[in-house]
Amino acid sequence: MKQVREKIEEFSKIGMDEEGAVSRIFGSKFMKEGQAEIMEYFHKCGLKTWMDSVGNIHGSLECGKENAGEILIGSHLDTVKQGGIFDGLLGIVAGAEAIKLLKEEEFHLTKDIHIIATNGEEGNELGGTFGSRAMMGLLPCGSDEYLEKAAAYGYSKEDLLHAQMDTSHAKCYLELHIEQGPTLYNHGEKIGIVTGIVGLRRYRVTVYGIGNHAGTTMMEDREDALVAASRIILMGDELARRTGHNFVETVGVLSVFPGSAPVIPSRVEMILEIRNEDEKLMDDFMEEYQKQARMMAKIKIEPVVQKSPVKCSEKLIDITEKLCRQKQISYRKMPSGATHDGNAMALKMPVGMIFVPSKKGISHSKEEWTDWDDIDCGMEILIEVIKFLESREE
Amino acid sequence: MKQVREKIEEFSKIGMDEEGAVSRIFGSKFMKEGQAEIMEYFHKCGLKTWMDSVGNIHGSLECGKENAGEILIGSHLDTVKQGGIFDGLLGIVAGAEAIKLLKEEEFHLTKDIHIIATNGEEGNELGGTFGSRAMMGLLPCGSDEYLEKAAAYGYSKEDLLHAQMDTSHAKCYLELHIEQGPTLYNHGEKIGIVTGIVGLRRYRVTVYGIGNHAGTTMMEDREDALVAASRIILMGDELARRTGHNFVETVGVLSVFPGSAPVIPSRVEMILEIRNEDEKLMDDFMEEYQKQARMMAKIKIEPVVQKSPVKCSEKLIDITEKLCRQKQISYRKMPSGATHDGNAMALKMPVGMIFVPSKKGISHSKEEWTDWDDIDCGMEILIEVIKFLESREE
Repeated sequence: MKQVREKIEEFSKIGMDEEGAVSRIFGSKFMKEGQAEIMEYFHKCGLKTWMDSVGNIHGSLECGKENAGEILIGSHLDTVKQGGIFDGLLGIVAGAEAIKLLKEEEFHLTKDIHIIATNGEEGNELGGTFGSRAMMGLLPCGSDEYLEKAAAYGYSKEDLLHAQMDTSHAKCYLELHIEQGPTLYNHGEKIGIVTGIVGLRRYRVTVYGIGNHAGTTMMEDREDALVAASRIILMGDELARRTGHNFVETVGVLSVFPGSAPVIPSRVEMILEIRNEDEKLMDDFMEEYQKQARMMAKIKIEPVVQKSPVKCSEKLIDITEKLCRQKQISYRKMPSGATHDGNAMALKMPVGMIFVPSKKGISHSKEEWTDWDDIDCGMEILIEVIKFLESREE
Repeated sequence: MKQVREKIEEFSKIGMDEEGAVSRIFGSKFMKEGQAEIMEYFHKCGLKTWMDSVGNIHGSLECGKENAGEILIGSHLDTVKQGGIFDGLLGIVAGAEAIKLLKEEEFHLTKDIHIIATNGEEGNELGGTFGSRAMMGLLPCGSDEYLEKAAAYGYSKEDLLHAQMDTSHAKCYLELHIEQGPTLYNHGEKIGIVTGIVGLRRYRVTVYGIGNHAGTTMMEDREDALVAASRIILMGDELARRTGHNFVETVGVLSVFPGSAPVIPSRVEMILEIRNEDEKLMDDFMEEYQKQARMMAKIKIEPVVQKSPVKCSEKLIDITEKLCRQKQISYRKMPSGATHDGNAMALKMPVGMIFVPSKKGISHSKEEWTDWDDIDCGMEILIEVIKFLESREE
């Protein structure tokens, strides 16, 4: 669809640098500019438009019936630092253009449609999926520390509380998003039907050794924290591979102390991240990891982040699968390895997510790319799902 | 000797914090204070005293003969950040007190004695062993970049050049120092007769991987730079142990890029340090290291520091050994794993170094300790060596 491409190209300019990377970061002036532009856009699409107290933009098309249910559609407007043009924005534009089309076609609606451009989905000081957690009433508003941080972004406790939505009429939440991984691209498939969003846990792993002079301490007298940490890193990598079932484990952050060339490391701190759809597999992994790591060094393991896995709606998966078959569009049922606003939404309503391929699996980078033909396939399926849901009185 | 203890306790107060750690860092106000105090001290010891153009303090006692040779004795006045009370200071005080004693005893001198408290021996922006390299004419005065850095410390090119000593009369350089390693302490020996100072090389090792989303990139699709770096670290540690002959290898500095919990590391930069008395062993190690590392990842290895091993004077080793036997003081011939001013001095004259034990091998720390009885043993041997050299007309 020409309009989707035009709008993505237009809005991705907000916060784009000379090299084509987009930085529409939570709390930034570009994010504010983006919010204003999206409000105007929703308005022009003929939607009742408003911004809630935490910066989520809402656009609603009513079906005319009282107490009709509503279908939520959305994605996030913020980006990572120096991200790509599709991540988040695609789902917003796709939703708005889908509604515009239904209006133009004078499609008979049985339910309201409510589109949301969320704020702060990407990792930020108030936590990722900030906007959707606010709508679902999941923010830690009892924590003074959290309220203080929120105040620095201009949000009062009242703002955080007032953003909570009434979800009693919500029928489901739909999101079209780029995969951000290489699976569809590698297999030449057009559509990913998301079965669930993986759980995510992060631990701070501290490995202790004995710091000493690197010239005068012979190899046999050493307890080098970095050598021990290296063993633990390889053990974790191997254990994740053996676990299988799409289990992933990463050490992306590591610091060496004291961090001086002529001093044997006395301490290494690293962040261990694991993700999987199956909470039991994560428990088992950590039990074995701790057991093996403790045999390798003196260690401390502290949980830092813990997000449970989320299951997408079986019914929405089935509907999407049937529509892909009908349209003869290649697809794959797959988990999402990345977190999305759906994590929060799924606690209150059925969630359906549709992925389109990411070239070489690259995302969070100016190299992020999805062919426009693939975007069109995603749009087509999203529209068909909405029509299917709108055509049934339930 | 009571005086040695008193003087070490007195001067180590300069730059000492509340917890007892000493920071008399190159270029700091405490270092300047120390220089003034040491000049006064040398003066009171009855020495002709001056500071050269790069901040080394000199004290000289002439034997009265014209064109007599001179015995140099010294160590460094600067410390690392939060170091101990003995490192460097011991050799200065020991030298000065030894001369004072010879004067008091009216010992018949056949050669001048020249004591030096060097500046900038510890690692600093102008390079470790700065003061001794200046005296030996080894500074890179042809480099504009170096001259610019030196200027920031108040040293002009002329200052750097004028510090060079006339070494034509120098008979040898003697230094009493703490071991800074656990060998003497572990073996209950009083004196280390240093056979040589190990060579030191540092390399910047860059390990390349492919950065990607830690949630959406399956284990089998990864090229994780930190996992590869961990393999290389373990390989280097193992190779050093197999090499034997006191070969040591350390990675004390390591950085992960981009350094974010949800991103697979795309690059790891680390500093590899190796030390040994035998240059050939270091060549062989690096050849094998590079060969094995290249099989493990895409890497780049760049030399950063290269200091050749230094041999101490065989004659001074023999003299010291005989004196230890005569005095029935337990000793061990051993290499120094740490760099000293002797590295520079050895290029122009015979060098003799005497070690005293470091409790548990700890140095560069407020925990650095040597029993006063052990200091006395070191003093006794230093005085005997000086007397032996002064008593012979050669």
